[in-house]
Amino acid sequence: MTSSSSASIGTPGVAVIGYAFMGKAHSHAWRNVAALRPGAPDVRQQVLVGRDADAVTVAATQYGWAESATDWRAVIERDDIDIVDVCVPGHLHAEVAIAALEAGKHVIAEKPLANTLAEAEKMVATAQAARERGVHSMVGFNYRRVPALALARQHIAAGRLGDVRQVRIAYLQDWLADESAPMTWRLRRELAGSGALGDLASHAVDQVRFLLGQEVSGVNALTRTFVPQRTGQDGPEDVTVDDAAWSTLRTSGDAVVSLEVSRMASGRKNALGIEVYGSRGALRFDLESLNHLDVCLDGADSFSRVLVTEPSDPYIDGWWPPGHVLGWDATFTNQAADFLTALEEGQEPTPSFEDGLAVQRVLAAIEASAEQDGAHVGVDVGVGRI
Amino acid sequence: MTSSSSASIGTPGVAVIGYAFMGKAHSHAWRNVAALRPGAPDVRQQVLVGRDADAVTVAATQYGWAESATDWRAVIERDDIDIVDVCVPGHLHAEVAIAALEAGKHVIAEKPLANTLAEAEKMVATAQAARERGVHSMVGFNYRRVPALALARQHIAAGRLGDVRQVRIAYLQDWLADESAPMTWRLRRELAGSGALGDLASHAVDQVRFLLGQEVSGVNALTRTFVPQRTGQDGPEDVTVDDAAWSTLRTSGDAVVSLEVSRMASGRKNALGIEVYGSRGALRFDLESLNHLDVCLDGADSFSRVLVTEPSDPYIDGWWPPGHVLGWDATFTNQAADFLTALEEGQEPTPSFEDGLAVQRVLAAIEASAEQDGAHVGVDVGVGRI
Amino acid sequence: MTSSSSASIGTPGVAVIGYAFMGKAHSHAWRNVAALRPGAPDVRQQVLVGRDADAVTVAATQYGWAESATDWRAVIERDDIDIVDVCVPGHLHAEVAIAALEAGKHVIAEKPLANTLAEAEKMVATAQAARERGVHSMVGFNYRRVPALALARQHIAAGRLGDVRQVRIAYLQDWLADESAPMTWRLRRELAGSGALGDLASHAVDQVRFLLGQEVSGVNALTRTFVPQRTGQDGPEDVTVDDAAWSTLRTSGDAVVSLEVSRMASGRKNALGIEVYGSRGALRFDLESLNHLDVCLDGADSFSRVLVTEPSDPYIDGWWPPGHVLGWDATFTNQAADFLTALEEGQEPTPSFEDGLAVQRVLAAIEASAEQDGAHVGVDVGVGRI
Amino acid sequence: MTSSSSASIGTPGVAVIGYAFMGKAHSHAWRNVAALRPGAPDVRQQVLVGRDADAVTVAATQYGWAESATDWRAVIERDDIDIVDVCVPGHLHAEVAIAALEAGKHVIAEKPLANTLAEAEKMVATAQAARERGVHSMVGFNYRRVPALALARQHIAAGRLGDVRQVRIAYLQDWLADESAPMTWRLRRELAGSGALGDLASHAVDQVRFLLGQEVSGVNALTRTFVPQRTGQDGPEDVTVDDAAWSTLRTSGDAVVSLEVSRMASGRKNALGIEVYGSRGALRFDLESLNHLDVCLDGADSFSRVLVTEPSDPYIDGWWPPGHVLGWDATFTNQAADFLTALEEGQEPTPSFEDGLAVQRVLAAIEASAEQDGAHVGVDVGVGRI
Repeated sequence: MTSSSSASIGTPGVAVIGYAFMGKAHSHAWRNVAALRPGAPDVRQQVLVGRDADAVTVAATQYGWAESATDWRAVIERDDIDIVDVCVPGHLHAEVAIAALEAGKHVIAEKPLANTLAEAEKMVATAQAARERGVHSMVGFNYRRVPALALARQHIAAGRLGDVRQVRIAYLQDWLADESAPMTWRLRRELAGSGALGDLASHAVDQVRFLLGQEVSGVNALTRTFVPQRTGQDGPEDVTVDDAAWSTLRTSGDAVVSLEVSRMASGRKNALGIEVYGSRGALRFDLESLNHLDVCLDGADSFSRVLVTEPSDPYIDGWWPPGHVLGWDATFTNQAADFLTALEEGQEPTPSFEDGLAVQRVLAAIEASAEQDGAHVGVDVGVGRI
Repeated sequence: MTSSSSASIGTPGVAVIGYAFMGKAHSHAWRNVAALRPGAPDVRQQVLVGRDADAVTVAATQYGWAESATDWRAVIERDDIDIVDVCVPGHLHAEVAIAALEAGKHVIAEKPLANTLAEAEKMVATAQAARERGVHSMVGFNYRRVPALALARQHIAAGRLGDVRQVRIAYLQDWLADESAPMTWRLRRELAGSGALGDLASHAVDQVRFLLGQEVSGVNALTRTFVPQRTGQDGPEDVTVDDAAWSTLRTSGDAVVSLEVSRMASGRKNALGIEVYGSRGALRFDLESLNHLDVCLDGADSFSRVLVTEPSDPYIDGWWPPGHVLGWDATFTNQAADFLTALEEGQEPTPSFEDGLAVQRVLAAIEASAEQDGAHVGVDVGVGRI
Repeated sequence: MTSSSSASIGTPGVAVIGYAFMGKAHSHAWRNVAALRPGAPDVRQQVLVGRDADAVTVAATQYGWAESATDWRAVIERDDIDIVDVCVPGHLHAEVAIAALEAGKHVIAEKPLANTLAEAEKMVATAQAARERGVHSMVGFNYRRVPALALARQHIAAGRLGDVRQVRIAYLQDWLADESAPMTWRLRRELAGSGALGDLASHAVDQVRFLLGQEVSGVNALTRTFVPQRTGQDGPEDVTVDDAAWSTLRTSGDAVVSLEVSRMASGRKNALGIEVYGSRGALRFDLESLNHLDVCLDGADSFSRVLVTEPSDPYIDGWWPPGHVLGWDATFTNQAADFLTALEEGQEPTPSFEDGLAVQRVLAAIEASAEQDGAHVGVDVGVGRI
Repeated sequence: MTSSSSASIGTPGVAVIGYAFMGKAHSHAWRNVAALRPGAPDVRQQVLVGRDADAVTVAATQYGWAESATDWRAVIERDDIDIVDVCVPGHLHAEVAIAALEAGKHVIAEKPLANTLAEAEKMVATAQAARERGVHSMVGFNYRRVPALALARQHIAAGRLGDVRQVRIAYLQDWLADESAPMTWRLRRELAGSGALGDLASHAVDQVRFLLGQEVSGVNALTRTFVPQRTGQDGPEDVTVDDAAWSTLRTSGDAVVSLEVSRMASGRKNALGIEVYGSRGALRFDLESLNHLDVCLDGADSFSRVLVTEPSDPYIDGWWPPGHVLGWDATFTNQAADFLTALEEGQEPTPSFEDGLAVQRVLAAIEASAEQDGAHVGVDVGVGRI
């Protein structure tokens, strides 16, 4: 007996806009969500959108899409598209996401939400209006879906660390450590918005909010561009974004966070390291070993190194047996599943655009403080929900 | 512009036989190979086969198959099926694999190759005959496709450890440590063949052969069943396989290997630990941190901890940027890609059924030695190719 | 044949003032220096001084002193005392050290140099005058004599990290994490001067100066007292020092240092962690594993974990064979040896009182910045020598 | 007021015979025991004995001895010597230890107890006779006094691991990995007795007995000399001891131990690694990080990394505050304290010469099995006490 397996009528269709690094990662999620998060609602991997027709056609085939397309505006109007997943560069987030929401599509926007506060605020306003019409949105802080970090949040929320007092968070990479590394668009403020701040600190600030369930209320900060010029195609060019940034954050719950981000940290590849210290316990995490969480809970005196691959751990039930570790890509698959589930339940997915804006406001405060030689700058994240 | 993306005519079609743990893992590979190993030839994810029609239909949809089916004999005769991927329990490997090869299909058989030496030998004979007709086969020792282990093999082959003298290899799990864990079919010799030996030591022995490019020439061994009875559905039942095994292996290149496998190692989840010591260097690996390799090369005095995620590392070019770690599932995707590439090039994929048989012969020698209180038993792996 | 072993005439005699924790640690150094730093000049362990005659007599016997005494003023006048080692609480450093220097004795003062800048400045003035008379002094930043950190400094000085850009330094302990931990004199400003700042950050700032060979030129900082009251013998008392402190330091060589110190970091015992990132390499160190140094040198791509116990490593030649690890106490023994050697050579030992004052000035700037909500405060360490 | 501190009349006097590596380490213990194990009875560091009068005079002064001497036979007859600490090479242990016991002196003999079983048996007979006269003896397996290993034994004895089933123990060094390393007396059977076996496996076997409180009842084993000739002063010489050894041990409590020792393990300096797996927990230890113990206790699911420096941990109360780590030398100081305490209490110190003999019998069985190609050899340790 042979039966044809096909998506049922009514399965929501997805379009991913952008097919570079993030488009590939999000495609991976949509391709795998049914297999690895079997409790999630069905989804249809419909169309991948990019500017280069030939390249996006190849990518669409490789990444499992039914079709490719070059005109995102046309795609977001299609009736068979229900979800628009925005993986274009940051300076285009606002335009695409707002248009999609206004076209009645649910939207995921990659992080950071936007390159400017003004854009982010407009995106939130649009998202709030859309939400009234049952149209939902989410910003793609995928590390919320690392099982170990989701477990960390559970421990903190359950009070197993007591009152959180100190957070140490650093996101260190090394791909710009060599001053002969060439100029790229990522080092131009007009395109990238900022450097390590938007790229790395956005994740870090989101984790602070996610893990603690608290807002950032003020910052002192410093930024540096260690290599002020790099060689581009036509000779030396000015680097107009930060290479590294430091900030001391204060939270609404009176914790203090030390934050450091850098693309100049020789020998560190993708080292998002998080430590949380409370009155009765502590946690440690390293993204390069993302299946592990070190925990000191309930007044214990030492850290247990936990391999977060048990069926009872967050997200693990759809994956593999204990001890069979997940990759970085799993975060996107888990994120897609949570997004689909929220849609099915009529809930706003998290993190919302408001969460994305809250992060942007902290980043803006960091830049403002850095311009004032590190003086304290208060933050009112306003619309944020954690 | 919209273009439809579909497989070209002539793309080989795959059937996976079995949809439990291994069927899910192999499905994952076929679903992702195009996206993550873009240099690999195209493949068509055609049909998933299982005995329970309803369950396999659901699984087929989840795992991305065009169809499901219940009769594997019918499937292997289909003209649109070119590759048969055997993920049934070990005592059925021989029957399915031999039939598929005789039907002219390329075959992947999950490890261990078979439960008995006789079956394994028959499988090899069939594979050799098929090979003459251009029909190829492979046994699924997926850990050969862990990038860090593939890199380890490169270092050893390049002489960067000098002459290899000692290998320490242990595969430790804990799921049977608790004596109240219930009886399962895996603990019955007639179904499972053996216990930790076939399940875990098979991987370990394959790694010895893979990493060193040497054969095992003799063994001393001991096995133990620490919990001789466990509670089944109808009361206490005898455990008729080993819980743990130890062996000292000698290799064709005069290295000595200490091997230990256990499902009773409290606190260890999936800990395949490998250490290789040579005259000019050493290597260390742990499957629970599978993206890392510790290397001491070229006469160095200490170990470097390498995150094996650089574009120049084996398999990484199709995946993610440096520092973005892979999961356990990546081993299957990489394996599928290598298999497809070998087929395209008309090469026999590795590891071959002969390799699988060579491992079985070592395991048989281990059991023979254990029955003789650990006396030395020579091994002639005979047909093995490394 | 039997020969009597006794100190030669002219061997300098030492008096340690104070017999509590630091007195015990310094006694350990004087008792062991001849055995473990055999190249160092001879020394005579003469007298241990404390206020409680009975207790100090017991301690003197245990710790290997020829005598005990209760009147430090009398001791520093003795002709058979050449070195006065000041291990009294910080608020008494200035009085004892100055008197000893004026009495013509060489002086070691435990860190931090003093509780107040005024005292520290007076100590420096006295030390400078004494130096003119051939009388020398040193401040006891013993971590400069951790072999791994001495090796780290060598690597940095040799340019093997390139230009140092970022330093991450944290000193985390947990003995005050529990808010029911009782009040102690260490939490009273009038006795302790400060909290984690003087106790822990002093070590950290000294390491920044030591490792980089650079001065701190400015700071932004924050301090916190998370538990503002603790229970003393007569009920609740105010804690008048900091529990934790954070600072971003800028150095004379344009590096940026993030510093965090805390006695509230649950699960961390004595965790002085140091990371240094340069344009061509990096280093990592953890005091809880003080025999190890992780190094990424000369443009390498990963960290080697080096066990710093080779004869060629700093200080190791007098200790044990490779792989036989040193304890925390070794830092004092090494320090004593360096002090004696400097005296013999007529050199000023390092770190000098000026170095101690330089650290105090940075700590003062941290407190000043903290009082101004983290605004930038410039530092002119002035007399400092690195 | 000044009071002279001197040893009271009746304080036992010690002579150490031998002033090389072990003589230095034992001297360290006697010099420091009063300071760091203040509960231990007093002791008098009287005389260091060696053959070279000039060299031993220098060593005696450096190491804190009142005198030096060259004739050990004269020293062991002296009335002011109560304890003889035998640090000569292994082939001389029996002669010195037996003479000292017969002279009525308490004796510590360095490990291994002797180079031959016959010598070890004679030593035990002498020790037993001496014990009847109140004269006590001990063999110097100093790693029993690593605080982390003493704690490990406590956990096992308290049942916190449940029934111990598997032990993995390896002692890996690399100083002979390079085949150009020169010939030494340690590689000649007539002087050294054996190679890695006596030097390293003796520690490992003692730990098995110490940690488990069980005897070894049988072994299968293999030994190898990877570099059969090395260059001596007069050209190539045969290496007549093992470079590495492997054994599977069975214990009286039905546990299985895998043991591997090597001086050829590139990159490993002094890596005594121990893992113990029981039905309800597990332990891990590494001598290169000897202040840490990884524990999985009472049915827990993961390992806690414990820094064994709390006042409640074995031996720590006399040392430093939490987090201030101990060095390798601390094991000797702790051993001396335990020895003195046992003498004062009229107890036989542990490990006794019988314990030393038990280890020798296991090593002899390992050699016997290795000569029979790894066949099983039973062990009756006979007189052993654990």
